[in-house]
Parts: sequence; structure tokens; C-alpha cells
Amino acid sequence: MVDINPARPRRDSYTVETLLAVTVQVFNERGYDGTSMEDLSRAAGISKSSIYHHVRGKEELLNLAVGRALDGLFGILDEPAAAEGPAAARLEHVVRRTTEVLIAELPYVTLLLRVRGNTAAEQWALRRRREFDHHVAELLAAAVRSGELRADVDPRLATRLIFGMINSLVEWYRPEGDQQAADQAAQEIADAVVELSLSGLRRS
Amino acid sequence: MVDINPARPRRDSYTVETLLAVTVQVFNERGYDGTSMEDLSRAAGISKSSIYHHVRGKEELLNLAVGRALDGLFGILDEPAAAEGPAAARLEHVVRRTTEVLIAELPYVTLLLRVRGNTAAEQWALRRRREFDHHVAELLAAAVRSGELRADVDPRLATRLIFGMINSLVEWYRPEGDQQAADQAAQEIADAVVELSLSGLRRS
Repeated sequence: MVDINPARPRRDSYTVETLLAVTVQVFNERGYDGTSMEDLSRAAGISKSSIYHHVRGKEELLNLAVGRALDGLFGILDEPAAAEGPAAARLEHVVRRTTEVLIAELPYVTLLLRVRGNTAAEQWALRRRREFDHHVAELLAAAVRSGELRADVDPRLATRLIFGMINSLVEWYRPEGDQQAADQAAQEIADAVVELSLSGLRRS
Repeated sequence: MVDINPARPRRDSYTVETLLAVTVQVFNERGYDGTSMEDLSRAAGISKSSIYHHVRGKEELLNLAVGRALDGLFGILDEPAAAEGPAAARLEHVVRRTTEVLIAELPYVTLLLRVRGNTAAEQWALRRRREFDHHVAELLAAAVRSGELRADVDPRLATRLIFGMINSLVEWYRPEGDQQAADQAAQEIADAVVELSLSGLRRS
């Protein structure tokens, strides 16, 4: 519907959170670099000045979107099961929860994993992502030192392969059915990631 | 150097193979869609008509490049160790060799994994890639049926996660040092992929 009174701004019922949901979709489709405020305005169906009412611009939207993914991931490390107990059990918890957070925050983690480039916001996201990976690599190395995990696979290499497995979800996982079905699928995938990385497919 | 005699074509010392090596790099940097014949001409340092002397156009270059990756991958399935013996051992061979082929043909497999879109050449590449994945999933399912692998992980899901692990290499693996160092790294990575997926990291 065309607004016939140009003096009256079109009603903008967005919150920062719902605006972010639209934004992250556009970023994932067109890439952050390839997205203009014009594209965001068109996708959201509100004017650019309405968007500027919520945020300072494209970079703040990126910060908020990857921040949401990073908060989810770093939150895992503060969970009791990630902080206490034998290293291998803590690693298992972190691997499982990382998979669950990726699925729960799929578009946001997808954006985080696709960020490249040289703006300050992108560099910050890359740095924080590497920091998270580093925490997991440390945990894996601790479990090797304690003798819980095998010493013949390099901890950094193993960490990369486990993240390769988890992060591949953004390429092929698409939630189907209702929330219950999605929760069940998420559970099955998290189990499979844990089993493959820690126990392997071979029957013992 | 500017050619001062426009009637004499500039010397073109390319073969299809060396032209392909330049092409695949440009495709990987700019995306297939985002690459023009002009871009290829600039990167190769020869005129567009010189490129047309070797190939019919951009689509044939894509066909040749992903064809090289696909030939490498499908070639694995014809190897004796992939075709004969217990299913789990055949799977192990295919997983190891897929990792090795990905490393040996890194730019070509990178292109294959990044192909999206709707041209006939891209659709064909996607179809053949799915066909290869399907062969591996079948092998994994056979190893579950024979009781060699655990039945509590869905074979299709396990296949996706194993490919997730292997394919992540295009994101983070960069060959370093001389051929011997690269071969050794490739070996270490292939071992780690096999160990993680079949035996897991936990000490048995």
C-alpha cells in the first residue's frame, strides 16, 4: 500500500531484534559487503531513516548480529559442565552445546562463519571467533594431557576437524516441521557430532 | 608491453591446463557468476580472443575445472581398495583418499564445493557431487548393515558430518613448505580424518 501522505512517516513496528532478523537474512544472501542500506530498507519494507531510528547503520547491525552468535557460543564456556570436571567431559559438553547453539541461532552463526573483510566490525568478529576456537583447542589439549584423549592426533588439527563437522551444518541443515521435530533433529545431530568426534563410528 | 602491431596476435604460451590453473583461481576469488571473460583475460594476461582459441567460453572452463575435481573423486571409487573387501575398510580407504584428492586438487575441489546457481554446467557439477556423496553414504550404510559400524548413527547424517570435516579443509588448509612437507601434512590430515570418523578421539 502506498503511503499517500508523504509528510506522515510510514508506521514502523520493528524492534531492533525483529529488524536484526531481517538484516541477517539479507547479509547471508548478498554478503555483508554486497548489502546496502537501500537493500535493507527494501527487505524490511521501511525507509532508511526508520532504520537509522533503530541503529547507527550497517556496521552496528553486523555487530549486533554476530554479537548474538558470539554471546551464544561464549555463554557455553560459562556453563558449569564446561567449567568443572574432567577435561574430556567438559569438551564433550562444549562440542554438544556448540552444535545446539549453531542450530538455535542458525542465521546468526551462518553470518559469523561467513564474515570476511577488513572493516573493524568484521575484524572483531573474526578475532572473537578465533578466540572461541582457541578455548576449545585448549580444552582438547588438556584432555590429551590428562590421558583421557589419544595423543596421536594433533589437538589443533582435531579441533579444526570437529569445527569443520559442526560448521558444515550451516551448508546443509534446514529445520523442518514444528518446534518439537526441530528439537529432535537438533538432538540427533548433536549426538552424532559427539559420537563421531569422541567415539568414532566403528563398533568397539 | 603494448603490442605495436595489432595485426600480429600477442604470443600466447598457454595450454588449456595452464589456462585452467589461472581460471580456477579467479573463479574462487570472484565467484563463477561474478567472473567475466574480461576478468579472465586480465588475469591471464592474454586477449579474450586468445582464450577463445583454447575454449568456447566461461562455461567450458567451469566444466573443465570441476570436471578435474570430479574425475579425481570418482577415480577413488574405481581403486581396488574401494571396490573390494569389507565395507568398513572400503569406507576407510574412500575417506582417506577423498581427503588426499581434496588436498592434491585444492583449488579445483574448492570451486566444486562453491558452485551454486542455475547454469547447466553448475547444475551438472552439483548433481555429480551429490552422486559422489551418495556413493559414500551407501558404503557407510553397507558397513552398518554388515555390523562393522554402529547402527545408532544415521548413515546419511554421518556421511554429511564426515564430508563436513573433509570439506572444511578448503577453508583453512594452505600448503606450506616444499612438496615433501606438503605431502607429510596431507598424510597427517588424512590420518586424523580417518581416526576421528572411525575410531574417535577417546582412548579405548
